[in-house]
Order: sequence, then C-alpha cells, then structure tokens
Amino acid sequence: MTSLEDRLSALEARTRLLEDQLAIYQLLAAYGPAVDSLSGEAAAALWVEDGTYEAGTYVFEGREALAGLVDIENHRTWVAKGCAHVVGMPLVAIDDDTAIARGYSRVYLHEGDHWRIHRASANRWELRRTPEGWRVTHRVNLLLDGDEAARELLRG
Amino acid sequence: MTSLEDRLSALEARTRLLEDQLAIYQLLAAYGPAVDSLSGEAAAALWVEDGTYEAGTYVFEGREALAGLVDIENHRTWVAKGCAHVVGMPLVAIDDDTAIARGYSRVYLHEGDHWRIHRASANRWELRRTPEGWRVTHRVNLLLDGDEAARELLRG
Amino acid sequence: MTSLEDRLSALEARTRLLEDQLAIYQLLAAYGPAVDSLSGEAAAALWVEDGTYEAGTYVFEGREALAGLVDIENHRTWVAKGCAHVVGMPLVAIDDDTAIARGYSRVYLHEGDHWRIHRASANRWELRRTPEGWRVTHRVNLLLDGDEAARELLRG
Repeated sequence: MTSLEDRLSALEARTRLLEDQLAIYQLLAAYGPAVDSLSGEAAAALWVEDGTYEAGTYVFEGREALAGLVDIENHRTWVAKGCAHVVGMPLVAIDDDTAIARGYSRVYLHEGDHWRIHRASANRWELRRTPEGWRVTHRVNLLLDGDEAARELLRG
Repeated sequence: MTSLEDRLSALEARTRLLEDQLAIYQLLAAYGPAVDSLSGEAAAALWVEDGTYEAGTYVFEGREALAGLVDIENHRTWVAKGCAHVVGMPLVAIDDDTAIARGYSRVYLHEGDHWRIHRASANRWELRRTPEGWRVTHRVNLLLDGDEAARELLRG
Repeated sequence: MTSLEDRLSALEARTRLLEDQLAIYQLLAAYGPAVDSLSGEAAAALWVEDGTYEAGTYVFEGREALAGLVDIENHRTWVAKGCAHVVGMPLVAIDDDTAIARGYSRVYLHEGDHWRIHRASANRWELRRTPEGWRVTHRVNLLLDGDEAARELLRG
C-alpha cells in the first residue's frame, strides 16, 4: 500500500506540472497585451536575458533588442491604426525544466470599418524554467503563406 | 523538516489557485457560446447580480440588462447573418477573492463567402469569487482602432 | 476533523479534474498543427479508433478516414496557399470518463497580402477517457452562417 508520504509526493509532482502548463499559457497570453500597448520592457521580460525572436527577416537578440520591437516603424504604424497580436491556445510539451510550445498567432489590423488579418503565423516557442518563472529562450514565427518551413514548425 | 500536514496545506492552496485560474478561463469561454446562441440568461449569469458591461457607448448594468444584450437590434442582425464572438486565452491575475483578466475578443461576421472581422477589442474583466463560483463584476471592451484608451486597458 | 488521508483523497480527485481539463485543452490545441502540417496520422490519433467527425456534408468515420482528411483536394489546396485551422479555448464539461467541449474554430486562408476567414464554425467535441488519455469520440463542426443548427450546437 502506498504511504501518505508517497501519495503526497506524487501529488506535488502532478501539481507542479499543472502549474508549469498554466504558467506557460499565461506567459504566451502576456505577449499580445505587451506589444499592442507599446510596453517594450514588459514584452522583453517574457524572454530570458539573452533570448531571441526570429520573425521572418527580423531577428531580435537579447532583451534590449526585444524591447525595441515595439519601436520599429511597422509596429508603430500598426499600433496607431489599431492592431491586435493574438496568440492562440498553444500545444505545450514540458520536459522538466524546458518546454516547447507550438501554435498560432495572428495580427489583426484596423482598416476602415473592419479588421484585416495582416499576419497568420505558425510559432514555436522554446522555454526554460528560471528562478523568476518560465521564460522564452527562443521564438520562431513564420507566416502561413504556403511555405513548407511554417508547416515544419507545426510538426511535433 | 516540513510536516505532512504542512505539505498538504500548501498543496491545497496551490490546487485552489489552479482551480481559480481554470474556472476563470471557463467563465470567459462561456461568453461567446451564450451570446451567439441568443441565450441571454446564460450570458447574464456570468456576471454577479449587479455586474456591469461597458462596450463603447453601450452600458449594461445588472443581470436583466445583461440578458437583454442578445435582443439589441445590432446583435440580432449579426446572429441572423452568422457571427462568432470569440474571447481569446486571457492573462489572469488572481488576488485571493478577486481577479483581473485582460485579453482580446473578436466578432466574426458572415458576409458572402467569408467572415469579416467586425470588431477586434481589448478587454478588461474584473472578477469576484462568489458562493456560486467566479463571476464578472465589471467588463470593459474597447475597440482596437488606434484609441489610446484601448491600449491602456491592455496594460498591467 | 478531516483526517490527512481524507484531505489527500479529496486533493487527488481535484487534481485529476484539473489534469482532465488541461488534457482536453491540449487535445484540441493539437488539431490545427496536425492538419495544417499535413500530418494525417497525428490528426486521426486525436480520435478513438472508431471516432467520427462531421463537418457539414463531410463525414469521416474511423481513424483511416480521419487520417485521409488532409488529402482531400480542398484541404491540399488550402495548405498550398497557406492556412491556419485555429481552435479557440473551449468550454469543457467533464462527467467522470466522458466530456463535452464546445467552442469556435476558424480557417484562415492566405490570399494576396492578407488572410481571409474562410470558415468560422461552432464545434461540439464529445470526448472519452481511454487508457492512452482523452480522445475524441465525435466532433461536429457547423458553419456560423446564420443556420440555427450551429447556434444549437453552442447551447449547453
């Protein structure tokens, strides 16, 4: 028969896994509100200090560069028009202190009396547990425009 | 060394926080299906009795007014055409018996052979733990049309 | 006073429910990446062996048929153009070893310099706990084009 102590230890491990999964959901849900409100520091804080973000030809390396993402001309133009960077519910695979999340993101851009989908992308987020919680080490974002590389990103 | 009792108490608190977070996800995920199926009472039941919802110039105060949301002419027209009120995965900050959820919502409206994005909004949901579970006390929805107020809503 | 054993048992049950809920979120989040990357086997594996999927006039019965979904001409054309099958955060009702998830899905299709919403649908997913984890037994997807049947699908 399993001892109370063993049952408790098993439960602690299960709870930690649930916490990890929800923490990763929360981390990804924080991206859009940060960039759409021009909060560059808040966006950069989702990554580790030397984290990277590749979005097509754009490559951001390190938190200073990541914080600058909200200052690039395209981004400022979008925000002025009205935009929403929506990260969907991701598929998350946790392996102890690292994790991979895969999923979709879209940029909705205000135009006249509606919003157009300006970007629909596949994403791969590599994550690491840090003393401050889960952080992104590397994110790749590729447009779903028929390119095989974007499909490859969605594979397990 | 931590006693079994202390470990159990700590785990109970952690589990409660996870339950709170998922309950809030579920509450927000219930909004779209309620309004898109013209279930006014079900939509209103997501709020506390005297809950409020501000969406631009519309202000709904109390459950009776909230239930009436599905009967306003614009809403009836959208539902007849075909529409989807999609609330995305929110960013949730829980403080004991209250919580704030921030995130995006969109209204997709059927038009010819496709759906147009009729609204893309920033949302702030204020929530309270009640004997019946988490309920919305106040929701603000602002179009992401370049207005600074919508960006402010997305900030922490 | 509640014994440690009773508290532990209660907590185990609560943890199982949280695991179930997140497992169902993950199952649904796996659908889009599977079909958009032409991984027919991975898509089919989300269903039980004799699972079914009704999407309008299309009906897929059993895993072999489900795996073939990615090979139908329409789907191949969409993938070649660039598409995203996005399943939103669902509303999940778990009843021991079965569950119902309701929510939205959309197909974004690349066209010129933007993506158009080619489908916006209501979904009802019937699920069952199996020795391999939660699996879909039956999914119904109906376009939100004004049809009452789609609205009915969203009701509780």
